[in-house]
Amino acid sequence: MSNEAKPFFTSEELLENWQGHRRLTRRVIEAFPEKELFEFSVGGMRPFAEMVKEFLAIAVPGLTQIVNDADVKFDEHLSELKTKQDLLNAWDKQTDEINELWQKIKPERFHEEVNLFGEYKFPAIQNIQYFIDNEIHHRGQGFVYLRVLGIEPPFFWER
Amino acid sequence: MSNEAKPFFTSEELLENWQGHRRLTRRVIEAFPEKELFEFSVGGMRPFAEMVKEFLAIAVPGLTQIVNDADVKFDEHLSELKTKQDLLNAWDKQTDEINELWQKIKPERFHEEVNLFGEYKFPAIQNIQYFIDNEIHHRGQGFVYLRVLGIEPPFFWER
Repeated sequence: MSNEAKPFFTSEELLENWQGHRRLTRRVIEAFPEKELFEFSVGGMRPFAEMVKEFLAIAVPGLTQIVNDADVKFDEHLSELKTKQDLLNAWDKQTDEINELWQKIKPERFHEEVNLFGEYKFPAIQNIQYFIDNEIHHRGQGFVYLRVLGIEPPFFWER
Repeated sequence: MSNEAKPFFTSEELLENWQGHRRLTRRVIEAFPEKELFEFSVGGMRPFAEMVKEFLAIAVPGLTQIVNDADVKFDEHLSELKTKQDLLNAWDKQTDEINELWQKIKPERFHEEVNLFGEYKFPAIQNIQYFIDNEIHHRGQGFVYLRVLGIEPPFFWER
């Protein structure tokens, strides 16, 4: 492949970047003690488990809307996820689902506008980039919670 | 342009994504009171000013190495930046410098390995993505500092 023909960034690279971030987020979930994962927070913010539920409420539901082009409702309540193991199981299930859904996104779809959750009208690729950026942002906050708890967070660069 | 020929993600889109994040980081710097920007932290972590200096030590120096293919030393000390206004001035200067350096990156260069700061040997595009992810990560921590200080952070989605 000549340099000219080489895509700047491919769909597979974006997926791998996301899944690399998701592996790191999984290690952050694991690093929290059970109780603190659901109860501890700093500065009046949400416990990390609530942020993880938000990631879960965005990732597979969001991709599902992008693939099926049918409205999906945003629901981050997920009250059935009560333990660290519940969160990790849901996380691992979504890892596979994300890989499967990704294969169903047609190349032209990434550039089509999607009114995500009936609220965020952007090209699909921008919505997906937002999923990743939002996860990095809140996971960084989880790192602070761990530090305040006296727990060493995982290495940021390890994916 | 046919869908098939449309690049998945362009160099210009990556730059715009980065500069959008940098505009948000600038608003976070502005939101801190002068003293707390340089002295306040949570959980034994660095004050936000130190994180901002890290961003400045990475962005233009890193891009300069990518453009010139000559070793650049990492130096996040930047002791000359003593006030919020110093940080904002350095930030704005780098905004222009990043745009200028970006135009000098040849398309094939993004996929060449760069041993950034003599330590991080990855394709240039992965190094740049890391610059952005690292900024999002630590800025998220700055959001926690602001919350603990009782200050409402800027909207994450506003760029």
